[in-house]
Amino acid sequence: MFDIPEGMIYLNGNSLGPMPKEAPSAINAFLIDEWRTELVKGWNTKNWFIKSNLLGDRIGSLMGAINGTTVVGDTLSIKVFQAVAAGLAMAPKRRVILSDNGNFPTDLYMVEGLINLRNAGYTLRTPNPEDVYSQITDEVAVLMITEVDYRNSRKHDMKALIAKAHSVGATVVWDMAHSIGALPIDVTDTNTDFAVGCTYKYLNGGPGAPAFIYVAPRLLDTVEPALSGWFAHEAPFAFDLGFRPMPGKIDRMRIGTQSIAAFTLLETALDIWDDVNLYDVRSKSIELSEFFISQVEAKCQGLTLISPRDPNQRGSHVAFQFENGYECMQALIAQGVIGDFRAPDVMRFGITPLFINLDDIEKAVTVLSNILNDKIWNKPEFHNRSLVT
Amino acid sequence: MFDIPEGMIYLNGNSLGPMPKEAPSAINAFLIDEWRTELVKGWNTKNWFIKSNLLGDRIGSLMGAINGTTVVGDTLSIKVFQAVAAGLAMAPKRRVILSDNGNFPTDLYMVEGLINLRNAGYTLRTPNPEDVYSQITDEVAVLMITEVDYRNSRKHDMKALIAKAHSVGATVVWDMAHSIGALPIDVTDTNTDFAVGCTYKYLNGGPGAPAFIYVAPRLLDTVEPALSGWFAHEAPFAFDLGFRPMPGKIDRMRIGTQSIAAFTLLETALDIWDDVNLYDVRSKSIELSEFFISQVEAKCQGLTLISPRDPNQRGSHVAFQFENGYECMQALIAQGVIGDFRAPDVMRFGITPLFINLDDIEKAVTVLSNILNDKIWNKPEFHNRSLVT
Repeated sequence: MFDIPEGMIYLNGNSLGPMPKEAPSAINAFLIDEWRTELVKGWNTKNWFIKSNLLGDRIGSLMGAINGTTVVGDTLSIKVFQAVAAGLAMAPKRRVILSDNGNFPTDLYMVEGLINLRNAGYTLRTPNPEDVYSQITDEVAVLMITEVDYRNSRKHDMKALIAKAHSVGATVVWDMAHSIGALPIDVTDTNTDFAVGCTYKYLNGGPGAPAFIYVAPRLLDTVEPALSGWFAHEAPFAFDLGFRPMPGKIDRMRIGTQSIAAFTLLETALDIWDDVNLYDVRSKSIELSEFFISQVEAKCQGLTLISPRDPNQRGSHVAFQFENGYECMQALIAQGVIGDFRAPDVMRFGITPLFINLDDIEKAVTVLSNILNDKIWNKPEFHNRSLVT
Repeated sequence: MFDIPEGMIYLNGNSLGPMPKEAPSAINAFLIDEWRTELVKGWNTKNWFIKSNLLGDRIGSLMGAINGTTVVGDTLSIKVFQAVAAGLAMAPKRRVILSDNGNFPTDLYMVEGLINLRNAGYTLRTPNPEDVYSQITDEVAVLMITEVDYRNSRKHDMKALIAKAHSVGATVVWDMAHSIGALPIDVTDTNTDFAVGCTYKYLNGGPGAPAFIYVAPRLLDTVEPALSGWFAHEAPFAFDLGFRPMPGKIDRMRIGTQSIAAFTLLETALDIWDDVNLYDVRSKSIELSEFFISQVEAKCQGLTLISPRDPNQRGSHVAFQFENGYECMQALIAQGVIGDFRAPDVMRFGITPLFINLDDIEKAVTVLSNILNDKIWNKPEFHNRSLVT
């Protein structure tokens, strides 16, 4: 399913997924049979023009969305901007955007930029994640929440947050960066307004793979695209001077001309998901995570779990605090166990059942435990090696 | 240099450039040696994190920009938005954005969206191209101009427009979509404020290849990113809650995580330009275009040149009006001569000296002339064929 270097235990699929085995042949076919051969005709003959929609529908199927409500393109930062801007337009008298201080910073940065552009007295509130629910009031225009915390894996109850937001007339933007491909999620059941996410983590679309945006069908007639490029126009090839958003269709959230090479890699990665049940992925992820935590706590003194202990409160990665976490992670990586480190002292491990099993977890903990027993970072040879990641 | 199907005469490099011969091996090396092998470490070990800058500098060298003033990423629509928003921030009391009705529509659409977001009484003016110069007044905050008209190839005098704009305190956004790789351009000599462009036309980066943005060095300390993603932050990996734009560097115009596959294809395409002199490209393009026009006018009755007759007033494509232009273009394409058609009656032909020579032009005119003599669209077999492009 994936081509992973021999002997590597890759516990970082929450950051960048590994390469699907079919990626090289798929991209070669795109280059030779599409770009080389069809050239500009490929926009029609090879469906390049509607690939953002075709891929959007496939991602939609992983989150309970009906066809025609999701498109792929741009970056998650751009899609967050679009979604929040659209939400603000729906509540013209409100001036509060509510998020939390566990959100991934680019979401907050993009909203800061949006607030500056609007220049109309908007405020971005970032309370602690556990205080978000109580701060959902009728002042709030948009609630912008990343379901799973990129650091400690704490998971919000999106259904509850969305219900409360709707009860006070607020719109919700759900960032699924660490949800899509990891959790069974359902935008229809939760009555989601907007969802956005990236495809290079659990979906394995490749470094910098395109983002996606979902808009509830009930909003598609009126939603403001904000970033109104020609791919969002009702008739892009009429080349009208004035913008008319595609009526009633998710196409209105498309912007400019997207990389078809990037789309091709994502398409190949999505083929894998055709045969995957996300409930199975989730239960396997919990099994592996529980085993990992119990083994680390039994064998790796000094590491403290900072992810929620209740698996239902976690996403699909696990984080530990450790004072020598940086050096420890360098040593792990040097020995082929790939996690990552977040300053000042957090070690993160992604648990991705599509390519990680119990045996991998057991081996990873053995390597970790040996490193801790050796206190490898106290040895001069550790510092003589080039271990930059 | 390029892999073009045998027998095809490709006169559409102004829309989508052909595939460089090295593209398949380059992308395969990226997949196998970078994504597969390095996985998340590639952001450092393979320079993914700074590739937007490395490629930006290489594009900068094609337009007289010094290193550190150009970055690659996103789409041209997004980069237009960023540049115009930044220009508006520099003239907070002015309320006019001046463009023209020959601009490519997505530029106008993005500005329309920006005006809606700002909601502060801005006006977009789109006079005829020949009236732009006289409409540059001290009301104008930003002059947004695409140098070469995508339809008829008419070329603005950017140096004169920029000088006049500066004399009244306006900022200029120069869209180089049909300039970069086709014309010797110089952002330094012209004292350009902002330049943006795409890389899938004359630069041959592939369908939907990333865009670029240039910002004058004198503006880099203060320019507002507008779309302020984490790649623009002074310290992206500090994960601060507040946005601090990278001081004094073009990095502040980066936004989110970009497709490294798309960057790899562009990198390969840019290798070709290392050995190319743009003055030579331009003089060869003029020679080929003059020959094409003279041959069409001598041999192809019914076609009327709508591009400027003076080659110094044209970009690198040539357009003719013809009442049966649609059918004629279908017939040309069916016979391997690829141009394109713009409603209602315009036939466009891109003249790209890197892969088109006098012999190609002569053959193309012969095919065109035969189609016209035959009035092929009056024959039943023409309509029985599938000729959709």
